[in-house]
Amino acid sequence: MCRWLAYSGSPIRLDELLYKPTNSLVVQSKNSRLGAETTNGDGFGVGWYGTAPVPGIFHSTEPAWNDRNLHELSAQATASRVFAHIRASTGSAVQQTNCHPFRHNRWVWMHNGLIKDFWKVKRELTLAVEPSLFPEIEGSTDSELFFFLALTFGLERDPHVAVATAVRVIEEIGHSHGIEHPIQMTVATTDGDTTWGFRYSSEGKSRSLFHSTDVSTLRAQYPDNVVLSGLSDESRLVVSEPLGDLPGAWQEVPEAACVVIHGGTAELTPFSPSNAIVPS
Amino acid sequence: MCRWLAYSGSPIRLDELLYKPTNSLVVQSKNSRLGAETTNGDGFGVGWYGTAPVPGIFHSTEPAWNDRNLHELSAQATASRVFAHIRASTGSAVQQTNCHPFRHNRWVWMHNGLIKDFWKVKRELTLAVEPSLFPEIEGSTDSELFFFLALTFGLERDPHVAVATAVRVIEEIGHSHGIEHPIQMTVATTDGDTTWGFRYSSEGKSRSLFHSTDVSTLRAQYPDNVVLSGLSDESRLVVSEPLGDLPGAWQEVPEAACVVIHGGTAELTPFSPSNAIVPS
Amino acid sequence: MCRWLAYSGSPIRLDELLYKPTNSLVVQSKNSRLGAETTNGDGFGVGWYGTAPVPGIFHSTEPAWNDRNLHELSAQATASRVFAHIRASTGSAVQQTNCHPFRHNRWVWMHNGLIKDFWKVKRELTLAVEPSLFPEIEGSTDSELFFFLALTFGLERDPHVAVATAVRVIEEIGHSHGIEHPIQMTVATTDGDTTWGFRYSSEGKSRSLFHSTDVSTLRAQYPDNVVLSGLSDESRLVVSEPLGDLPGAWQEVPEAACVVIHGGTAELTPFSPSNAIVPS
Amino acid sequence: MCRWLAYSGSPIRLDELLYKPTNSLVVQSKNSRLGAETTNGDGFGVGWYGTAPVPGIFHSTEPAWNDRNLHELSAQATASRVFAHIRASTGSAVQQTNCHPFRHNRWVWMHNGLIKDFWKVKRELTLAVEPSLFPEIEGSTDSELFFFLALTFGLERDPHVAVATAVRVIEEIGHSHGIEHPIQMTVATTDGDTTWGFRYSSEGKSRSLFHSTDVSTLRAQYPDNVVLSGLSDESRLVVSEPLGDLPGAWQEVPEAACVVIHGGTAELTPFSPSNAIVPS
Repeated sequence: MCRWLAYSGSPIRLDELLYKPTNSLVVQSKNSRLGAETTNGDGFGVGWYGTAPVPGIFHSTEPAWNDRNLHELSAQATASRVFAHIRASTGSAVQQTNCHPFRHNRWVWMHNGLIKDFWKVKRELTLAVEPSLFPEIEGSTDSELFFFLALTFGLERDPHVAVATAVRVIEEIGHSHGIEHPIQMTVATTDGDTTWGFRYSSEGKSRSLFHSTDVSTLRAQYPDNVVLSGLSDESRLVVSEPLGDLPGAWQEVPEAACVVIHGGTAELTPFSPSNAIVPS
Repeated sequence: MCRWLAYSGSPIRLDELLYKPTNSLVVQSKNSRLGAETTNGDGFGVGWYGTAPVPGIFHSTEPAWNDRNLHELSAQATASRVFAHIRASTGSAVQQTNCHPFRHNRWVWMHNGLIKDFWKVKRELTLAVEPSLFPEIEGSTDSELFFFLALTFGLERDPHVAVATAVRVIEEIGHSHGIEHPIQMTVATTDGDTTWGFRYSSEGKSRSLFHSTDVSTLRAQYPDNVVLSGLSDESRLVVSEPLGDLPGAWQEVPEAACVVIHGGTAELTPFSPSNAIVPS
Repeated sequence: MCRWLAYSGSPIRLDELLYKPTNSLVVQSKNSRLGAETTNGDGFGVGWYGTAPVPGIFHSTEPAWNDRNLHELSAQATASRVFAHIRASTGSAVQQTNCHPFRHNRWVWMHNGLIKDFWKVKRELTLAVEPSLFPEIEGSTDSELFFFLALTFGLERDPHVAVATAVRVIEEIGHSHGIEHPIQMTVATTDGDTTWGFRYSSEGKSRSLFHSTDVSTLRAQYPDNVVLSGLSDESRLVVSEPLGDLPGAWQEVPEAACVVIHGGTAELTPFSPSNAIVPS
Repeated sequence: MCRWLAYSGSPIRLDELLYKPTNSLVVQSKNSRLGAETTNGDGFGVGWYGTAPVPGIFHSTEPAWNDRNLHELSAQATASRVFAHIRASTGSAVQQTNCHPFRHNRWVWMHNGLIKDFWKVKRELTLAVEPSLFPEIEGSTDSELFFFLALTFGLERDPHVAVATAVRVIEEIGHSHGIEHPIQMTVATTDGDTTWGFRYSSEGKSRSLFHSTDVSTLRAQYPDNVVLSGLSDESRLVVSEPLGDLPGAWQEVPEAACVVIHGGTAELTPFSPSNAIVPS
């Protein structure tokens, strides 16, 4: 339904990341190879950690391939952590407040997938959001509400548990409304230092998720590759689909798993809603 | 904070209404004489009852004075009932889902004013909305939520009581949060046959509201006026500020009152939250 | 590069035409079957002849599939002649002034294809436009300039000769710049009474063009088809690709030909730049 | 008709410049004190010289006061040279390609004022543009055409002579069409190292133009001023109206003059079209 990438590593100019790769996210906005939808033309967003205390967020309702401001910004801005997302709406309005990534203080969040039959469960899920966070909800998407549920359940303290708890709540409320498979998701979230990538779906057939393998090995393998040559050893990408065709460059994140990127390490752990601490 | 007009009467081409008058709504979008803000450039909306079973709604985030599609549509569409609204945002995002008028089936609603300290009371007010209506809320404004509260309290059965009840709930919840004057409003709503215009504020200093006087008298007074000459006797306007300078053409709706326009009649009644039937 | 339809016949609500057919233009905006590009998400336009003296034009830079105002307008407006166009840009900016159809008085024009290496010939073609028409050019596309060339060469007097002359000028100037195949086109134009559809390309491999066959025969063949049942016998469509799968409903316009739709008749004639009257 | 500022000096975060001052450009977009129009809501643009070889350009058709992406970008980007412009259209379409500043390689240009009766002279002025530059013209404004005329007459070699020549051509062509006062202008242009500011009008009543005075003196005068404290001694602003109320902070550029800002120096010279070298 959407496509996204999460980069961390040596400072990179955004256009190197968003426009230059063969199967770049901007290319995918028109022609995604692995997406549930080939066209992801219902808006776009970038979050980038520059020198300011809070990450910048650029949201656009235009298709990414058309947005000149995105092109200009990308040619100027350098960041050591970048989240980018192209949207294929599953029904909610195409407006900037519905574009990913979403932000809360230094935290940034983006989602591919959906909460099934969202209109049936939206009210109950909304009520489950911590009241002090409620007024921050600006859009009408399942993805933003999912973010606020994760924040409610402690995203800023323990992302793995918070996301598991949010998923558990979504599944319980969904099941109570007779929804068989309440959630389908890949999610990326970061506090600016560590990136968490989640792959999960209630039916056990989750959308694709990949992370990049060791850059130094790749660079040895592909000495002429321009993108690789500029990257430090600890640079890592988590993506909903590979950005290029380099054999060996991408490793699939398994079904029901979480990948944690910190510095140059990528740690995989199983992910399940039963990891949740039941909210009191 | 906003400006609006509600027309009913003989079928009129929209541009006659929106562009032609001296102090037309499109002129007011740049330079309002009586508004709390002189510029109302944060979006625009028109609702019009044509031949289709449901009224059409055109929403734009551009300033009205710039919107070419509005100009084109207005030059083509004819309607016997037109609601139009120019917005000066009090904080919420400028997006189509935040533009007035709002629609539910054949009902249309628009609002000038605000729910004070909206972020403090938004959650409680949201919970007060009938759950089956909840998923229809698309935007993030106080005005749309006010509409859904009125729908919850029976707008489609008895608009006067429903709006009084919604105002009562808004005031009670506001007061419980220490907000002295929870609401400021002029509201227009219609089912396509009758128009209700409300003027009220908790502090008793409401935004301006006017309705047009008898067209036949005016036409006799101003035989050369082009706009008047084309209108039938039962044509009526309710407006947040007069559209022109014709002496005698406009009558102010008093503080805390409701004007009901049906055919060529304009009936005034007092309006007070105590008219509410307390929701069970 | 683009897709379009030109309808004439009994008054039809625009949504019947733009949204209802299986392979409607709005569907094609995301997934065109026959287009050079599958996605036509770089803007949209509709021209419709209602009751006003001049046709209405609605232009949007959003993908057609997302535009709520288009949906609303289409549910309200009825017209006996409709031009609609979805754009896949070949380079020029995505802005309303670059959206088809273009209008001059009662004439409306839309184009699928391109003037090859437009940047090389744009200045000379611009100079060939009648000086009094020049200030009306608002956008930066080859298609709008082509329209103004046709107007320069007498579109309002003799469309066939005017378009042939414009093509001849485009080819001559193109050839003088070493461009082998200067033009690729299907064009539809109308004065509100007659529609002319042109299929031509310098290399003799033109984009697809179809016109609908006799409605009464089709209606007899498909008695359950809702769209057909509401149409009068003289209703006709000219389209860049068929809107549905009814066998027998569509007839291809041959290479290098012009189809003239007047009332219920569709007349085919060969089209060639040599039909041009050399401008003095 | 428009408002603009041109900053050069120590690297500054864009929001310090665009949002923080009392009478900031974003404030002026809604309420300009000295402008011919109080509302400048017809688009916005920023050009900034960061670390990339070419300056970045951000163009928006929304009113500046509403644009969240501008706010985000401004909170992240730092530059030692910034051009910003808010537009009040004198007729041409509100679209990104009509937003200032305009860019050609490392040169950036913005204009307040107008070419009088532009539609009468547009074709002749367009013909006067160097043919190789012609395809770069993307919009439909007088201001962009003026830029391309200045480029045609050697802006990159000698800005003073080039602008004088462009003005002379505009006046000659205007006079030949019976236009009494063909041009009204303040213009800022830069190559990234030096800024030229021009104030001129055919009728000798030019729009206002100011440059900031010596920062070190100001800082001594206003030790508590936050904006001043962060600026190096050679920081300079050229503006269409003062950004704050500090007495002594602003010096008016006289009628028919050019101010050249290079490092911390501001040099004033008379400006007249007779400085032009007549193009051969």
